[in-house]
Amino acid sequence: MIINGMHDIKHFAGISSGGFMRNITRDSNSYYIDGKPGFLISGEFQYFRIPKDDWDKRLDLLIQAGGNCVATYIPWVLHEPVEGVFKSGDQPYRDLEGFLNLCKSKNLPVIARPGPYQYSEMKYNGLPEWLVKEYPEILALDIDGNTMSIGSISYLHPVFLEKTKKWFDYICPIIARYTEKNGGPVTSVQIDNELAGIHEWNGGWDYSPIGMGIGSEDGRYAKFLKRKYSSISAVSKTYDTKYESFANIKPKRDCVPVMDKDYRDFYLSAIAEFCVLLAGWMRDHGIDCDLIHNAGNTSMNPYFLETVSALGDDFILGSDLYYNLNMDWEANNPSPKAVVRTLICHDELKLMGFPPTIYEMQAGSASEWPPILPEDLKCWYMANIAFGMKGVNYYVFTGGPNPERIGADGHIYDYGAGIAADGTVRPVYYAQKEFGTFLNDNSWLSRTEKVSDFYLGLDWEQARCKNDSWEFMQKGLMISSLCASMMPEFIDLGENPMFPLLRFTDKPLVVAASSSMSSGIQKRLIDYVVNGGKLLLVPEIPYLNENFEPCTILADFIGTKTTSFDTSDCEINVCDLVGLVNTGLWKNEALPDDAIPFAFDEISKTNLGWSKTYPNGGKIVWFGMKWRHDKLLYNEMIRRLFGLTGIKSPAVECDNPNIWTVLRSDGKRRMLFIMNLFSSPLEACIKVKEADGSYTDSGNHKLIAMEVKTVEL
Amino acid sequence: MIINGMHDIKHFAGISSGGFMRNITRDSNSYYIDGKPGFLISGEFQYFRIPKDDWDKRLDLLIQAGGNCVATYIPWVLHEPVEGVFKSGDQPYRDLEGFLNLCKSKNLPVIARPGPYQYSEMKYNGLPEWLVKEYPEILALDIDGNTMSIGSISYLHPVFLEKTKKWFDYICPIIARYTEKNGGPVTSVQIDNELAGIHEWNGGWDYSPIGMGIGSEDGRYAKFLKRKYSSISAVSKTYDTKYESFANIKPKRDCVPVMDKDYRDFYLSAIAEFCVLLAGWMRDHGIDCDLIHNAGNTSMNPYFLETVSALGDDFILGSDLYYNLNMDWEANNPSPKAVVRTLICHDELKLMGFPPTIYEMQAGSASEWPPILPEDLKCWYMANIAFGMKGVNYYVFTGGPNPERIGADGHIYDYGAGIAADGTVRPVYYAQKEFGTFLNDNSWLSRTEKVSDFYLGLDWEQARCKNDSWEFMQKGLMISSLCASMMPEFIDLGENPMFPLLRFTDKPLVVAASSSMSSGIQKRLIDYVVNGGKLLLVPEIPYLNENFEPCTILADFIGTKTTSFDTSDCEINVCDLVGLVNTGLWKNEALPDDAIPFAFDEISKTNLGWSKTYPNGGKIVWFGMKWRHDKLLYNEMIRRLFGLTGIKSPAVECDNPNIWTVLRSDGKRRMLFIMNLFSSPLEACIKVKEADGSYTDSGNHKLIAMEVKTVEL
Repeated sequence: MIINGMHDIKHFAGISSGGFMRNITRDSNSYYIDGKPGFLISGEFQYFRIPKDDWDKRLDLLIQAGGNCVATYIPWVLHEPVEGVFKSGDQPYRDLEGFLNLCKSKNLPVIARPGPYQYSEMKYNGLPEWLVKEYPEILALDIDGNTMSIGSISYLHPVFLEKTKKWFDYICPIIARYTEKNGGPVTSVQIDNELAGIHEWNGGWDYSPIGMGIGSEDGRYAKFLKRKYSSISAVSKTYDTKYESFANIKPKRDCVPVMDKDYRDFYLSAIAEFCVLLAGWMRDHGIDCDLIHNAGNTSMNPYFLETVSALGDDFILGSDLYYNLNMDWEANNPSPKAVVRTLICHDELKLMGFPPTIYEMQAGSASEWPPILPEDLKCWYMANIAFGMKGVNYYVFTGGPNPERIGADGHIYDYGAGIAADGTVRPVYYAQKEFGTFLNDNSWLSRTEKVSDFYLGLDWEQARCKNDSWEFMQKGLMISSLCASMMPEFIDLGENPMFPLLRFTDKPLVVAASSSMSSGIQKRLIDYVVNGGKLLLVPEIPYLNENFEPCTILADFIGTKTTSFDTSDCEINVCDLVGLVNTGLWKNEALPDDAIPFAFDEISKTNLGWSKTYPNGGKIVWFGMKWRHDKLLYNEMIRRLFGLTGIKSPAVECDNPNIWTVLRSDGKRRMLFIMNLFSSPLEACIKVKEADGSYTDSGNHKLIAMEVKTVEL
Repeated sequence: MIINGMHDIKHFAGISSGGFMRNITRDSNSYYIDGKPGFLISGEFQYFRIPKDDWDKRLDLLIQAGGNCVATYIPWVLHEPVEGVFKSGDQPYRDLEGFLNLCKSKNLPVIARPGPYQYSEMKYNGLPEWLVKEYPEILALDIDGNTMSIGSISYLHPVFLEKTKKWFDYICPIIARYTEKNGGPVTSVQIDNELAGIHEWNGGWDYSPIGMGIGSEDGRYAKFLKRKYSSISAVSKTYDTKYESFANIKPKRDCVPVMDKDYRDFYLSAIAEFCVLLAGWMRDHGIDCDLIHNAGNTSMNPYFLETVSALGDDFILGSDLYYNLNMDWEANNPSPKAVVRTLICHDELKLMGFPPTIYEMQAGSASEWPPILPEDLKCWYMANIAFGMKGVNYYVFTGGPNPERIGADGHIYDYGAGIAADGTVRPVYYAQKEFGTFLNDNSWLSRTEKVSDFYLGLDWEQARCKNDSWEFMQKGLMISSLCASMMPEFIDLGENPMFPLLRFTDKPLVVAASSSMSSGIQKRLIDYVVNGGKLLLVPEIPYLNENFEPCTILADFIGTKTTSFDTSDCEINVCDLVGLVNTGLWKNEALPDDAIPFAFDEISKTNLGWSKTYPNGGKIVWFGMKWRHDKLLYNEMIRRLFGLTGIKSPAVECDNPNIWTVLRSDGKRRMLFIMNLFSSPLEACIKVKEADGSYTDSGNHKLIAMEVKTVEL
């Protein structure tokens, strides 16, 4: 039974009348608004929570704040409240088409997010109650076979897929009628929501035997392993167990590391399979615009490599980004560590081929305390622009009551939004308006790139497994660099046809390596150096490949191996700097031929670093120390290390390590972002390097707490 | 062999010449400087790191910043560099007596901290290398029998005690010659440093069989258990194991909870035993001033109940307090959560009978990044005064180079101090000077108490085990109260002769209870209500005693029991407020006779709260919900709950829940502290209640980020 209110049909009739609709397009770098470079500025506007009488007024407020797009979940739980009973338009809060038509009339493109999941502080994460209660077999299971949470299902469970397909069979045709090509406002449609989150946040990957196809010869787990290992003897050998068949292989705790890694890769390939299915259903129903997905946070971006590859063009991966969602989060404000995550986030999305888009950008919080304050938000937004954000959707732009008791978090879903549940305009709105005005006044910024001083090698495997080296890269390398005014830019160490490694020999490449590195990356790094690239390698020279098997391709090229050693009584000397504190040390077996040492332990006289030049100008600088940035001396140390790779001076010189700067340029115009991410006032003298190598003094800058200042040069 | 430089002997001769020396005394509430009420304002001034030539100048800077005291470690490692070779005065950095004489000449009392431990970012936490390397048997062991860290020893290991005694035999006579009674500057001497820290931070309690006396019939562990259980059959029954003798009892993982708790209490009694030994040696050598100890942080204060009781008068427990020591700490600034810890800290120290003293107050950090900034520090200091601090020692006031490679953290120990290692004056110094001036200009504040609206029951057992209820008390009750302008004051639920419970029936008492509560506290709470006290009990009514045995004294008095129930689909109504979110619910077996319900789940109609009045005006308000303060609605909820206990209006009314206020009064003068602990500007209208119940409008207050404003009323 499908109930479609008369109201909607009238509105549906309305869209065929055509007329101008704002057009949002994009390339791999940025967005174009009606063909002109600009920022995507969207606000999450949930028609089912915002009182319908207020839609018009609040959409106008979004437009006045510089908005050029809206986004909304389309909750399965509301549109199929009883299994098989689909509803739309019968209640103001279910009037999806009325909303789409209103957006069209206001020339506002729409990002539609029909699930199946919404999360959004709804019961069962937005799934219908009948689904999770009547079909408990669809629930995800952890590695011990326990259910995680009643809102966590197994994506590929056949029953879940069957029910999801019916939901899509209902909702996708409605959305399809409103895509841009059909004269409607829908500019993109989101596939599910923050995939993997319902598992990772509730106990780990999903191990449901049915959903994940574990325990049968033709299950998808067996198929994945067959593709990788071909024979049961090969997988038995690698997993150090005797299996009789692929059907016998079951994921377990305390297994060899490669089995864990394989399961993670398998799980992420299952996510891709799920996305391909959903995308197929959307396309089948005529949804012809970009499909998108929002990684739950920066650390989840790397989970979608298989998905991105499987979905090809007409798909955008973006990310959700918050600095505080409740009192248990690290800081109440956008701290330097939070801002480092934004840098990683935008660079990762760019390397995947997308204009970096934050589909859920903090604009409030489900927690009303600690408060999300307007000055902090302005700082957060501007820091994101500095580090490369090209599109933003405020989550949420406005709030309202939860219809039909769908809320898991009280009756009013207000989220501290700029426009409150009752329509009150809050200070947060003016922060957004100021930000929107800035973006629209400086739309040229959307075509800029950050001016970087060096490349930082992104090994997606590290980003996925978040090992010690990944942590060192952030807490050591990146923070030391940012404090020393040396701006990193991530490049993909994988085989990326869009961004081949050899294109990036103009600046040094820094790689934070661990004991394992894929043979492909080892080879590419050799290739890089052989072709004149300058490589700073810290702290280990890998001796294992991606499957943790012996692999010394890079070590053999270099001519030495590294081993860790006790750090309890050392006096590290790096380029004549003494007084450094390490969090781990590696020594090499022997100094490679013609290598010039620059670092050693003064107690044991152990060599800790050397540089070696190769025939065509390529260079390897190896430094065997990990650190956490907690000494000002690291600023000088990192500068001297970079000096060895050939960087004489950075693009920006800032005399206060606590003030971070980003220079953005489109080749003609430049803008300098100056950031105080602390709660005390700070000041700095800042100079910017010109094409001829000279520096222009931009003056002394005084910043109040949590201020991002911009200077156009 | 004892080497005492001529230099020292000369200086020692000097002190007998007498002359006026500033006198610092104290009662259980506050300090007296030369007999007049005032704050203890000390700076950690480590003679062994500060260049001797600069002592004079830097001590003057401390005095100019309002300082009236200095503190210093006296490192064993430096004064006994080789076993049996004691040195003092032979090098400028070992000239302890020169330093003490200089302090005397400047009329600056000294807090001497001779260890055995210093920590202080020294190798082996300040123990001599020969000690930890040549006597590895003294190392502490974790529950699995593994050593923790080479700097973690077992306090009561006979070899460690023997070596420590020799160190004290050398150093204590020197210190004793300089106590106030002997005309010297030493006003107090610290027993060891942050006891329990070297174990808790490195793997748990110490389980060294020798040090802790485990595994022998007359070991101190067996003796402890005999005192508690008398017979081996009694302990076997309680521990649910068959032991043949006390010598057989070994602490183990996954045991019954009471065995864990007993071991913790035993460990803490061993700490007390260690302190009594050290104190005895100090007294034997003529140290006749106050002895002190510094708990490592707020959560460690409760570890010293046995110590405080064993040492009696002439002992002060203080605490160390930092809001950030490296980038892995929660926030870079004094956040509301950090400030809640200061409230707990000062109230706990007060309840133990001491003027709340912070023996190490953040004045920098061993991590130079994230920076400790002056405005944040000012905010932190003022918030501490607001919540009751009476004495402070800046850690560190100034820095310098580490002599003899004792540093575990680089050569220069600067700590971002107000006076840098090279003597440079940093902005932090001016923040301290402003603070010191404020304290000296307002010395009357040292005799004030914070004006509270209600009492919060402190169950030391909860504070020690840090269970769910302890967390709820902080993240739910306390933060909701502070956001609602309702000021708590801790009172001791234990049998405290200084603060008997029945003295506190003038305001309601709030108790965050868990399933277990000692029978003594259960009885005292009944007594409290029977004698007219008004009790708000959340969320559980206990049914176990302190040993986790059935104990329903309080439940029997009340006439009902509570059990937890599923919270997944509830709509809580508390005093007609709907939309609250809980983190745990308890229902009662039956409504007690004459109880008036006020809270229920609208879905299941389960009662969640009632109040009952007793014949003499006593009252119990029971509310079966835990929460985390993340909704503004809790402000109203907590006010209505307090309304049921009889609080009509609080001492201060503040219309912005993000601004916290503290009113301090000495009965005549009052000062209002207004705090913005966020990084955005905030404002509030604030009214203060007068004796007649009317409110005085203190006006509209605009605060910048991290500002604490004061208004004298």
